[in-house]
Amino acid sequence: MSLFVIKKEMVELMPKIFIKQLGTSFEYSSKENLLQLLLDDDIFVDNPCNGKGSCGKCKVRLLEGKLPELTPTEVKLLKKDEIEAGIRLACLVVPEEDITIELLQKERKHKILTTGYMPDFQFKPAISKKVLEIEKPTLDNQISFEDSLCQVLGNKKVNWQILRECEGSYGIATGIFNEDELIALEAGDTTAHLYGVAIDIGTTTVVAALIDMSSGEEIATASSINPQKKFGLDVLTRITYELENPEGSIEELQRTIVEGINELIKEVCSEAKVNKENIYEITIAANCTMMHFLLGIDATPIGKSPYAPIFVKAKNILAKDLGIKAAKGARVYCLPSVSSYIGADIVAGAYVCELHKAKENVLFIDIGTNGEIVLSKGGKLLSCSCAAGPALEGMNISSGMRAAEGAIEDVVITEKGIELKVIGEEEPVGICGSGILAVVKELLRTGIVKKDGAFIKKENLEESDYRYDLIQLNGKKREFVLRATPKQLLITQGDIRQVQLAKGAILSGFHALLKQAGIEMNELYKVMIAGQFGAHLPADSLVGTGILPEAVRDKLVYVGNSSKTGAYMALMSLKARQEMETLAGKMDYMELGASEGYEKLFSQCLIFGDKN
Amino acid sequence: MSLFVIKKEMVELMPKIFIKQLGTSFEYSSKENLLQLLLDDDIFVDNPCNGKGSCGKCKVRLLEGKLPELTPTEVKLLKKDEIEAGIRLACLVVPEEDITIELLQKERKHKILTTGYMPDFQFKPAISKKVLEIEKPTLDNQISFEDSLCQVLGNKKVNWQILRECEGSYGIATGIFNEDELIALEAGDTTAHLYGVAIDIGTTTVVAALIDMSSGEEIATASSINPQKKFGLDVLTRITYELENPEGSIEELQRTIVEGINELIKEVCSEAKVNKENIYEITIAANCTMMHFLLGIDATPIGKSPYAPIFVKAKNILAKDLGIKAAKGARVYCLPSVSSYIGADIVAGAYVCELHKAKENVLFIDIGTNGEIVLSKGGKLLSCSCAAGPALEGMNISSGMRAAEGAIEDVVITEKGIELKVIGEEEPVGICGSGILAVVKELLRTGIVKKDGAFIKKENLEESDYRYDLIQLNGKKREFVLRATPKQLLITQGDIRQVQLAKGAILSGFHALLKQAGIEMNELYKVMIAGQFGAHLPADSLVGTGILPEAVRDKLVYVGNSSKTGAYMALMSLKARQEMETLAGKMDYMELGASEGYEKLFSQCLIFGDKN
Repeated sequence: MSLFVIKKEMVELMPKIFIKQLGTSFEYSSKENLLQLLLDDDIFVDNPCNGKGSCGKCKVRLLEGKLPELTPTEVKLLKKDEIEAGIRLACLVVPEEDITIELLQKERKHKILTTGYMPDFQFKPAISKKVLEIEKPTLDNQISFEDSLCQVLGNKKVNWQILRECEGSYGIATGIFNEDELIALEAGDTTAHLYGVAIDIGTTTVVAALIDMSSGEEIATASSINPQKKFGLDVLTRITYELENPEGSIEELQRTIVEGINELIKEVCSEAKVNKENIYEITIAANCTMMHFLLGIDATPIGKSPYAPIFVKAKNILAKDLGIKAAKGARVYCLPSVSSYIGADIVAGAYVCELHKAKENVLFIDIGTNGEIVLSKGGKLLSCSCAAGPALEGMNISSGMRAAEGAIEDVVITEKGIELKVIGEEEPVGICGSGILAVVKELLRTGIVKKDGAFIKKENLEESDYRYDLIQLNGKKREFVLRATPKQLLITQGDIRQVQLAKGAILSGFHALLKQAGIEMNELYKVMIAGQFGAHLPADSLVGTGILPEAVRDKLVYVGNSSKTGAYMALMSLKARQEMETLAGKMDYMELGASEGYEKLFSQCLIFGDKN
Repeated sequence: MSLFVIKKEMVELMPKIFIKQLGTSFEYSSKENLLQLLLDDDIFVDNPCNGKGSCGKCKVRLLEGKLPELTPTEVKLLKKDEIEAGIRLACLVVPEEDITIELLQKERKHKILTTGYMPDFQFKPAISKKVLEIEKPTLDNQISFEDSLCQVLGNKKVNWQILRECEGSYGIATGIFNEDELIALEAGDTTAHLYGVAIDIGTTTVVAALIDMSSGEEIATASSINPQKKFGLDVLTRITYELENPEGSIEELQRTIVEGINELIKEVCSEAKVNKENIYEITIAANCTMMHFLLGIDATPIGKSPYAPIFVKAKNILAKDLGIKAAKGARVYCLPSVSSYIGADIVAGAYVCELHKAKENVLFIDIGTNGEIVLSKGGKLLSCSCAAGPALEGMNISSGMRAAEGAIEDVVITEKGIELKVIGEEEPVGICGSGILAVVKELLRTGIVKKDGAFIKKENLEESDYRYDLIQLNGKKREFVLRATPKQLLITQGDIRQVQLAKGAILSGFHALLKQAGIEMNELYKVMIAGQFGAHLPADSLVGTGILPEAVRDKLVYVGNSSKTGAYMALMSLKARQEMETLAGKMDYMELGASEGYEKLFSQCLIFGDKN
């Protein structure tokens, strides 16, 4: 992404950060701390406290250049010999010039996930490989292959499909195990090749990460639009499609997402030069509807009262049975959901953010087409789901588009004009979710839009007012001219209403949850923003539009795509998987529509302004 | 089948037996005991002692007509009030006139299997149905369908595929269980419909019986030529086909037999007006190679030294995974084998004949393309397999055909001419296995063929000898004219050699097994002849050709298709299934080719004659 400014400013030579062991460098311009700069550039540094300067984990060594003086916190958290060796805590220093640093965490640590927050955990996947020696039969001992194999395994039962696929390879072979169960057999010693894929299926976007399960390293990622888009943009329209096409639509939806997943697997395999026959497990986080679609299970009960799904439990199934192409015997692990509208993506997020271990009150929000909120009251979890609609993802907006090249992702309105930040080195062609939120924030700040969501009347403005030219009339409708030429980009009253509805939905859920738990705003310790999309919504926009109250501005923590991170953890740790299942079973769910006084609360929350 | 006699004899009015509760009658001509007459007419009467007059089970009540006086055994085995009520033991009375009788065993007993020997056992199938009531969700309790179901099941895990197929039917539903495991779910109460299929896959013939699992009744049967015939007539040529076509032949062989099974299932379902969606289990007995083909598992190791198969263990798998069309979630249970050449068909036979419980020494022979022999030395089992070749099934014989309409199945040579018994009301078109055996027996008896297997020289016979015209010369080759017109049917020297090889193979196996077990001929208590085909080989032929020694003539017991009976028992009794698995694990196997002095023994056994 690059800064595209309409009024051209002079180009300054920007300072650089050199990373010694990567042999790379990057330029920086913002006055942010070193940790943030590194994370922004997709260089992962462990930071369990989220850069709050309390865990002392984000150590880097300064090799060349200068950094500001040691802070008192660094003096407290670092050992004397570490300080003498030039070690600093990245979250506490704001660099100002060219520096060269060395990353101090183990190779495998800082490469694990390229983005997003993840707690420390022990690698111990459900899937493992073991070399076996299978005795050959003789005329005196005409033992069957299966019996020879059973002997090596300590007389465990062998799945018959393995006998179909093993090609009777006696001698040295490699067994692939799912916990204790043999799921596949390969001739020779193949222990060097052990891969898995962690997948997040969003309603809009599907993300896949190819993982070397021996090291835990993420070696390739790919993402695509959810190909089920053709059946509807959101969960409910896809369920409606299923309802209206009783013949074969379940299979059609299933096939479509599986084809999408197979494409992504192909892509990551090709990027990392890995054979898909060496992918032994695929872990999947998704909302409850996407999970039903994936398994080819009727999702229509999710769309109608009493909104009870067919299943929420975790699933461990054969990839082959879903049509997913991977190793013979490969498994698919689907993370558990809580209810129709609190899916495995949210369970993953709550787990990744360690809500179940929180000693304070922590709020978790995943902002997407649905906004899901989980409140941890000292480890006890209560959740709700709000139908935010697709506006915050750039959909249902007149000039809306998804966050791709050419999308306006940030807007600043000044007396001198409008500054647009565009993704890629592109002319702007539309506006994505973070852009629409930014522009609404700016429209509110500048008073172009009032607290009730209506545009200010153009006739009430002086012609000399810089805002006068930014409003145009289309018949009786007022529109904001975001860009005049070469192609007009407008923000309509309808666009504002879409954002207003999303704001009302999320904010009312936020308040209802706090009320239900008996927690006051000031008793909240942290608010964690999840979702690939949420990561692009700055505090200014979230608070500036009133989606979240001003009081939580300084409590916001961005955790990235915690759904994918949860899938990753489930892939790399059987224990994490089991803990997520326990967490899902313990999370309470509050049906907002059924809660007392909700309609009134919702209409209050529609108002833009600082009362909330 | 009917008697077709070339020299027409006068037709006598034959006496009849009326069966009261069946409302049917049949004519009889032979001077056999009543039990045998009933069994010959496919009316099953329990006879655990095989009609030896020792068990007292084959009771019938005489209602009209006369039977000979009570035998001393009947007086001993029947109670006084039974005798007064007209009850007789069917195996001990030989009727001579029209009689009306009542069968005394329970309805379900005598209808169970239409043919073949079967021991008493308790019906307790692995598969059962149970009505469940699945709680509906509410807005206050948005419990998932799966969780509701788990509650009813006592929190057992539910297979995800059931969720795919259940259509979310809350309320009254019927669970189908495989032991404790739920394998399918149906809306409403469907307990009235519970069917299974017992199948015997022979190299040549496939037989399927549709069973009402609630009553144990066999309600339809069907059979067909094994459609894999096109890949070869015997096991080894099919394995060779697999070897020579490494690409896709395993799948081709698998698909072929599965299509054949699906056809048979369709046929029995249509005959009994049963929906195949109500068939929940298919039990299958077959030789080890057929079982490999069925599962799509490489059978080539069976065809080459050291003849170790890929598997012998019993399998319990999803019908769907094999492509067999039945109920959703339906299972296939494959009976266990012992080794490459002692398959599940033989395990089934040994179990059905209760060899493992035998207190005496009992020999079991399944005569087919392969002859398998099992010797029980007071319950300890030793087996071997002899490559008899297909001659005894009418294959590889110049005028050979399988036992279908128009096949000669019995031959008598007298001075007056040749009497032929033909299957169906047909002109003879060929000769089947029992026919070829009968003709060889007659050729030996009349001296037309000598003990070394060669035809007598025509020039050594007087022209007045009735045999003179029965031999013709084809160049230097002598041939026996079985039928002269309208179409000549011949028995060639080559045909005799085929039978001779089969005889040598079976008889040498017989002797080798006795020798290995240290048992003398006179210590044998019983010789059980199994196989649909074996049932058509009378003692006269078996002993007359020397396939079996004269000494066992009076010890022969015919048990019918004990492979199918074993599949039936495995379907109707979980215990039988478990006992078969134990039996298979304990049966020893002797590789004839590897046993000392076998070649010499084999060449001795090639001689036709009474030394053996």
